Amino acid sequence: MRSVAWSNNCLTLLNQTLLPNKVETIACNDWRRAAEAIRRLEVRGAPAIGAAAAFALVLGAREQAALAFPEFKSNLQETAEALRQTRPTAVNLFWAIDRMLAVLEGLPDTADSAAAIQALEQEAITIADEDKEMNAKMAAFGASLFTSPTCVLTHCNAGALATVDIGTALGVIRQAWKQGNITRVFADETRPLLQGARLTAWELMQDGIPVTLITDNMAGWVMKNKMVQAVIVGADRIALNGDVANKIGTYSVAVLAKEHGIPFYVAAPSSTFDFKIASGSDIPIEERSATEVTSLGGNCVAPQGVHVFNPAFDVTPHSLVTAIITEHGLLHAPYDQAIHQLSKLCK
Amino acid sequence: MRSVAWSNNCLTLLNQTLLPNKVETIACNDWRRAAEAIRRLEVRGAPAIGAAAAFALVLGAREQAALAFPEFKSNLQETAEALRQTRPTAVNLFWAIDRMLAVLEGLPDTADSAAAIQALEQEAITIADEDKEMNAKMAAFGASLFTSPTCVLTHCNAGALATVDIGTALGVIRQAWKQGNITRVFADETRPLLQGARLTAWELMQDGIPVTLITDNMAGWVMKNKMVQAVIVGADRIALNGDVANKIGTYSVAVLAKEHGIPFYVAAPSSTFDFKIASGSDIPIEERSATEVTSLGGNCVAPQGVHVFNPAFDVTPHSLVTAIITEHGLLHAPYDQAIHQLSKLCK
Repeated sequence: MRSVAWSNNCLTLLNQTLLPNKVETIACNDWRRAAEAIRRLEVRGAPAIGAAAAFALVLGAREQAALAFPEFKSNLQETAEALRQTRPTAVNLFWAIDRMLAVLEGLPDTADSAAAIQALEQEAITIADEDKEMNAKMAAFGASLFTSPTCVLTHCNAGALATVDIGTALGVIRQAWKQGNITRVFADETRPLLQGARLTAWELMQDGIPVTLITDNMAGWVMKNKMVQAVIVGADRIALNGDVANKIGTYSVAVLAKEHGIPFYVAAPSSTFDFKIASGSDIPIEERSATEVTSLGGNCVAPQGVHVFNPAFDVTPHSLVTAIITEHGLLHAPYDQAIHQLSKLCK
Repeated sequence: MRSVAWSNNCLTLLNQTLLPNKVETIACNDWRRAAEAIRRLEVRGAPAIGAAAAFALVLGAREQAALAFPEFKSNLQETAEALRQTRPTAVNLFWAIDRMLAVLEGLPDTADSAAAIQALEQEAITIADEDKEMNAKMAAFGASLFTSPTCVLTHCNAGALATVDIGTALGVIRQAWKQGNITRVFADETRPLLQGARLTAWELMQDGIPVTLITDNMAGWVMKNKMVQAVIVGADRIALNGDVANKIGTYSVAVLAKEHGIPFYVAAPSSTFDFKIASGSDIPIEERSATEVTSLGGNCVAPQGVHVFNPAFDVTPHSLVTAIITEHGLLHAPYDQAIHQLSKLCK
């Protein structure tokens, strides 16, 4: 089952907030429902959000089909703006929207709205297909880092559920496992929204890959006891200097990996890089609702009215990153040079 | 409301598994119910467990009141053994049981069971009273470490709920706050059982001390952003070399504190020290049920049948500990010498 699928002008999203208890899909025939799904994390994971937003723009375009192109274009730009507001940190969202808008900009003012819709749909399908291809390439490059049987630790979900295909970090793990070089995956549960427990553990169990679930605060003790030999995570945004924004808790895992002499790998397609920002300190960190921390599955787990700090992401400085796995190959320090090279390939 | 109270031959425990949603007590008239409460974490926190076990032995003794002393003694030793099995890591449990048994051993074989019960009850009351006094002394010594307004981070609950009075780590925080030197407490929620969210946040809010609840994986990011200037935690067992067993996640917090140049303090009465073991590697680590991780308040938060690793404690090496706050004063490295001195005071 795909996290993001498109057919017959309908965007079908696997509702990730219900996993692993229920496997249900959301059929989006309206871009507003797709935007809501992104906001509610029903679809999550940087590449999956990007693809979902691209298809949401196709739905938005179809709504304007009867209008002349200039008005069609102007309205769709507004839709794009609304989609941009759904999640502030994931750069793939902006990247996908920008790609779609570039298609729109490329059309002459005399264009036909129907033709524009067709071009936009083709671009969205290309974005999804490219993600699939990038996953496969990252998996191959990343698996080359694992040359003997290894236990790895991962945080959050950078898997099939976060992308259009096999995943970024979990794509690498799947490939290395096929090659006999992954013996077990330790999955941090990843509070507050438990993507590790609900999604990563579920995904890996579906594929028969041995997985052990731990709470986030056990990662250090697992490392201290030499139960893992590598860490691999995904990313939501990477700055020019190699600083990595990813799910809250990633930074702590990176510090712990360094303390234990364990390599810390990041798997991310080039669309995750923000070539416009110099360092992680320029990345806005989304703060989410206190109720994500104070309640769990409808149960209140903290006192009423308690003050909460709930950043959704943190930034891991490039100095803690052993390598970044991209679809163009492995990046190593000095990252500013490696990422500058990458930016040229992406122009 | 006290976590452990004794009156009219009844041990009253505040049921900590129901907090903060319900404030309910458990009246134990049978030592088996008290043992069950320790096992189920209805009473938890090393000093509170010690006091609860001491009173449980008084209940056990009263059950044998009709027997001649030799049989009374032998039966009570069996009860003590059963109580020892309830929690394997908390040394205060063994310490309190040993104190009670020493009273028993001190009586002549010709003793009267009624007199023995009275002596045991007096010893249990003394253990509870001493805990209260130790809390006050630790609070005074610990507060001297805070000389200017400071935000502190704490893990789990080393508070009034974990002791008979104001708490160990939270006792220090309460005292330093009174002196104007605590501006805010960041409380790690402390998965899997959420003692930080349910108990520490609740306790501090009751006292009007500003508290911010975070998930465990946010501690590193909070430190990175200079939101806390010190860490203070309790302990479940401390070895001769200063290695500290405490709630799972403490080790990660200690590593993160070191990385950020933040002092890491442990507050623990001398009863928490195990003068019989050389280092933390000799401390048995209790592994608890997978369901603590996979479910929350009856809600399943992970796939059915997922493999789980659930150690209840970890060991923080003494090299990461800035100071240990005891009722006899502050201990600093080299800890083997300081703890050797302490052991002499405790003979």
